Amino acid sequence: MEDVVIRTLEKVELRDPILIEGLPGVGNVGKLAADYLRDQLPAKPLATIYSKFFPPQVYVGEDGVIRLVSNDLAYWRAPSSAQRDLLVLGGDYQGISPEGQYEITHRLLDYCHSLGVREVFTLAGFAQGRVVEEPRVLGAATLAARVETMKKFGVVFSRNDPGGGLIGASGLFLGLGRLFGMEGVCLMGETSGYFVDPRSAEAVLKVLAKILHIEIDFAALQAKASEIDRIAQKIHDAESRTSEAGPSGPAQREDLGYIG
Amino acid sequence: MEDVVIRTLEKVELRDPILIEGLPGVGNVGKLAADYLRDQLPAKPLATIYSKFFPPQVYVGEDGVIRLVSNDLAYWRAPSSAQRDLLVLGGDYQGISPEGQYEITHRLLDYCHSLGVREVFTLAGFAQGRVVEEPRVLGAATLAARVETMKKFGVVFSRNDPGGGLIGASGLFLGLGRLFGMEGVCLMGETSGYFVDPRSAEAVLKVLAKILHIEIDFAALQAKASEIDRIAQKIHDAESRTSEAGPSGPAQREDLGYIG
Amino acid sequence: MEDVVIRTLEKVELRDPILIEGLPGVGNVGKLAADYLRDQLPAKPLATIYSKFFPPQVYVGEDGVIRLVSNDLAYWRAPSSAQRDLLVLGGDYQGISPEGQYEITHRLLDYCHSLGVREVFTLAGFAQGRVVEEPRVLGAATLAARVETMKKFGVVFSRNDPGGGLIGASGLFLGLGRLFGMEGVCLMGETSGYFVDPRSAEAVLKVLAKILHIEIDFAALQAKASEIDRIAQKIHDAESRTSEAGPSGPAQREDLGYIG
Amino acid sequence: MEDVVIRTLEKVELRDPILIEGLPGVGNVGKLAADYLRDQLPAKPLATIYSKFFPPQVYVGEDGVIRLVSNDLAYWRAPSSAQRDLLVLGGDYQGISPEGQYEITHRLLDYCHSLGVREVFTLAGFAQGRVVEEPRVLGAATLAARVETMKKFGVVFSRNDPGGGLIGASGLFLGLGRLFGMEGVCLMGETSGYFVDPRSAEAVLKVLAKILHIEIDFAALQAKASEIDRIAQKIHDAESRTSEAGPSGPAQREDLGYIG
Repeated sequence: MEDVVIRTLEKVELRDPILIEGLPGVGNVGKLAADYLRDQLPAKPLATIYSKFFPPQVYVGEDGVIRLVSNDLAYWRAPSSAQRDLLVLGGDYQGISPEGQYEITHRLLDYCHSLGVREVFTLAGFAQGRVVEEPRVLGAATLAARVETMKKFGVVFSRNDPGGGLIGASGLFLGLGRLFGMEGVCLMGETSGYFVDPRSAEAVLKVLAKILHIEIDFAALQAKASEIDRIAQKIHDAESRTSEAGPSGPAQREDLGYIG
Repeated sequence: MEDVVIRTLEKVELRDPILIEGLPGVGNVGKLAADYLRDQLPAKPLATIYSKFFPPQVYVGEDGVIRLVSNDLAYWRAPSSAQRDLLVLGGDYQGISPEGQYEITHRLLDYCHSLGVREVFTLAGFAQGRVVEEPRVLGAATLAARVETMKKFGVVFSRNDPGGGLIGASGLFLGLGRLFGMEGVCLMGETSGYFVDPRSAEAVLKVLAKILHIEIDFAALQAKASEIDRIAQKIHDAESRTSEAGPSGPAQREDLGYIG
Repeated sequence: MEDVVIRTLEKVELRDPILIEGLPGVGNVGKLAADYLRDQLPAKPLATIYSKFFPPQVYVGEDGVIRLVSNDLAYWRAPSSAQRDLLVLGGDYQGISPEGQYEITHRLLDYCHSLGVREVFTLAGFAQGRVVEEPRVLGAATLAARVETMKKFGVVFSRNDPGGGLIGASGLFLGLGRLFGMEGVCLMGETSGYFVDPRSAEAVLKVLAKILHIEIDFAALQAKASEIDRIAQKIHDAESRTSEAGPSGPAQREDLGYIG
Repeated sequence: MEDVVIRTLEKVELRDPILIEGLPGVGNVGKLAADYLRDQLPAKPLATIYSKFFPPQVYVGEDGVIRLVSNDLAYWRAPSSAQRDLLVLGGDYQGISPEGQYEITHRLLDYCHSLGVREVFTLAGFAQGRVVEEPRVLGAATLAARVETMKKFGVVFSRNDPGGGLIGASGLFLGLGRLFGMEGVCLMGETSGYFVDPRSAEAVLKVLAKILHIEIDFAALQAKASEIDRIAQKIHDAESRTSEAGPSGPAQREDLGYIG
């Protein structure tokens, strides 16, 4: 089979579209942000992407219907001339091997390039390893001029973060994107790294909305954030009780740690 | 070499055949069911499948003759107009890497599509992690309409099972099958996950036989189930004695746990 | 680069040649036997095989000159009409991944097929997990008729050994060989599995020599076996002393266990 | 995407150029040496190499600008007839899988061959597992004649080192290079293997400079070596204090061990 199979659901002509990428990763920040953006715009389905570099897996919906794991492209036509058409890329997985990451990203960039994409925003989480009350949005860009522009939108460029660079799709879409003549920015929401983090996703999307001149209603995302907070508080309480009671705490934390 | 080598043993024309897949997996339920179905119909050899995504291994028969590990397709011509022609896929292994899973499944679907297959049943085990006295048959399907049809045959569609979806051939034949315009159902027999489970295979086959309007004599499969029961009882007894005697029980259970 | 690069050193025409394969494996029996056969015939270099499925490694000789890891084919022209021309395959490694095993074996079979090979003997060790005083030669073959022939040469076909089949080149050359219309036999010398075992290699070669009507002087191989015996004895003595002295024995055994 | 993507930055004609390879590895000796050579000559950028066999990673500079991980070729035109044109290969990573090592090396050799390269020097570290006060430069070569020549430059050819051969790019560029008709030498600076080792890189470069009739100012490299020494001394002191104080020493050493 082809390494990457792209099923186009609708043929569209877009005007100078911008690609927004948000796939699963640290705190699921990128995926939460991209999915929320897609739903709020709302963006319409454009293409489904399958690959042998994803796990050999299908999901089963509550109705008993299966769905092969995939990435998905949706498009949004700008209603006003102050805005740009958008392509939103989300999905179940990033490629599960280094080679797979390169192959999938390269193929998607090629496809998006043929749709006219010359500009990319990648959305991600940045793990701080501690609770982050008010997540900042860190940035990295393909050009120094873009770094300056982003600073005006409140994006933080830190001399030391991220120290080891970016690993995975959010970096690769920018790095390989340059081979296609694309420029772009990675927006990283600070997050603990322990939970999925809708609050960090909100911070990222707020910056992105300003950049793209779009308006987003954050109520549903905030509700999700509150729910996670509530769960986190429960865990905290359970741990406090447990640490008074005995050593079974850590195991219990582990059980709850994957909620999200 | 080709990624997947298909050796056709006989050229056949089939009328609207249905593909039944059952490869090694949880409790070996799928493989037990598919092999038993093939032997009982009986279905005739159609093609042998080799692949570099299988282990580099040959089996040696009791007669000293070697056989390269493979998957195998057999066919059965429906003797009555109430029935459909069948293709039964079994074998020694699933692909041993994610990529291999995709490549082998895609190639086999392509081959079966050219034989006229538009409908697929995949057979598998569903690990409950506990002894299952009367295994139910859980289901997942490519279409909501099929879910409804399957319920009439006693197939259980559970809101939460399988939670993480299906991993491996049984899911992939359905998920990738849709790219070939095929629809289908996965039938999963409940099983502990600790033993090979002919009783679960029987439950799956009984449902399948009703769906396909075929009759199967289950005597040999039941005999196999009784043998496994006998072994399980022996282990249970040994454990009881051991747990009275001392701490060497778990090791002994481990020794016996692979019987099957 | 090509998956497998075959550098032909000399163009030869061979009459109905037999391929003898012996690559590193259990007790290094196959490699010891094939290398010794090549040196004793002596067989002349025919081709060098490089592959990206070998480790990215060069050996450095005592003279400081490097050599890329490889497999190697040598040929021997039968001087008498009672004998057959031979091709001997040896080398530094088997393919280091399952896929690599298939790719290398397939390519070499294709090459040997074009040289006229229709018959293959693969040489290997069979690990018994205990000291073997007088190694028997176990067998496996592609045809029942060959099993019978081999029994006349003293080859043992055991109903239960090897239970899990053969893994690696010695099995694959036979299993894939059949796809090229080749028939063959695997000769496995019993060995402990803990040491390289020239004595087991000798047992294998003695059977092979009878089959091929060739004469081999085993003096050098026996000298090597005696040297290994001497080392094994030393280890045994050291262990005896150590087990009297204290618990440091196992570590010491480990240090010596790789000698060979 | 192509396995290896080579972006040529400038078309050049070189006269009988020599390739100098130094990629990350033991003590980073090879990379330190090649990078320092490139900066001192100075050599000009010729080509950037990307590959799916590198990690899917971008680095973020202090200015916030990203850069996809790569290897890089630079060239230097010899100003005097006593010297030869040079190509210097450095980079962020070697291929991260055995296959990747072969593919990248083969492709780069092919590219360099088309630029006229027939001679290769590979630079590497040789881990001694102990502090090395005055690192010797060990060698390995593709031809016995080159071994003799190298001895005159003080290169040490040891009967036993490196015992297991060379693994990775420094060996492979020579081993595969021979398939392109190239000859060459590997220069290995002795190093502890625990730290990056500019002093070992200096030793290697001093030998290389003599061979190539070039002059290099080692002041900056020596400054770097002194800095590492200072850090190593600090660690030593900290350990001494800790080993007096208690058992937390090893953990602390681990924290500092990656400095470099």
